[in-house]
Amino acid sequence: MDCLFCAIIDGDIPSRQVYADDTAVAFLDINPLHRGHTLVVPRLHVSDVLADPETLSLIAPAIQRTGRLLVERLGADGMNLLVNSGAVAGQEVFHLHVHLIPRYADNPGMRGLLQRSPAADLDEVQRQIVGS
Amino acid sequence: MDCLFCAIIDGDIPSRQVYADDTAVAFLDINPLHRGHTLVVPRLHVSDVLADPETLSLIAPAIQRTGRLLVERLGADGMNLLVNSGAVAGQEVFHLHVHLIPRYADNPGMRGLLQRSPAADLDEVQRQIVGS
Repeated sequence: MDCLFCAIIDGDIPSRQVYADDTAVAFLDINPLHRGHTLVVPRLHVSDVLADPETLSLIAPAIQRTGRLLVERLGADGMNLLVNSGAVAGQEVFHLHVHLIPRYADNPGMRGLLQRSPAADLDEVQRQIVGS
Repeated sequence: MDCLFCAIIDGDIPSRQVYADDTAVAFLDINPLHRGHTLVVPRLHVSDVLADPETLSLIAPAIQRTGRLLVERLGADGMNLLVNSGAVAGQEVFHLHVHLIPRYADNPGMRGLLQRSPAADLDEVQRQIVGS
């Protein structure tokens, strides 16, 4: 099975991890919309959020904890949670993942969600979230 | 307490409901991005998704069931789930709500999410989802 996110969860492909528990792993998106853009991914391979009735409930605590961690450590002013289910909705990796996108005052509102911020150093962002 | 969504849940303000269970109510967004745009709202008043560690887990089954219902009844090709937490992220009503946004082939991809489709008759959309 050639699933990018399964390979990341298994450690076969490196990622900048910021949170993990028994149900899910969270790591920085390598092409962030805004500073601290993170993906929360269930350990179990499920293709998308509508494919399985249990997985969203299972990883909801991990989503909530990762979201609070990002807001607190990065000093974000808010956050979007976004799930793309199906290629037409923008899904590119077919292993369920929840985008946690911290938001800041310089690019507010729904419209600002897709207006990409200037690139940040991902290693520095990871250090800010998890400590050194 | 002047909460618009509490008033909708209590029936004091009308809505086009498409799903309900013990944890949540789902009704059509009155200003839809795409056909069948629906809000899933917990019955309990919680200001936003990061304010309470339990509510996202509690309503996750309602989110999943409403999402499947919309895709099946509307013949959507995919769906986005979006939560705006905080004014900077586009939150306008401070009662946690999850946007379920059905997606269709005419306006695909992440960019298409915020490119509003032509207005549809909301009563007709509701009938298509819940039956007559």
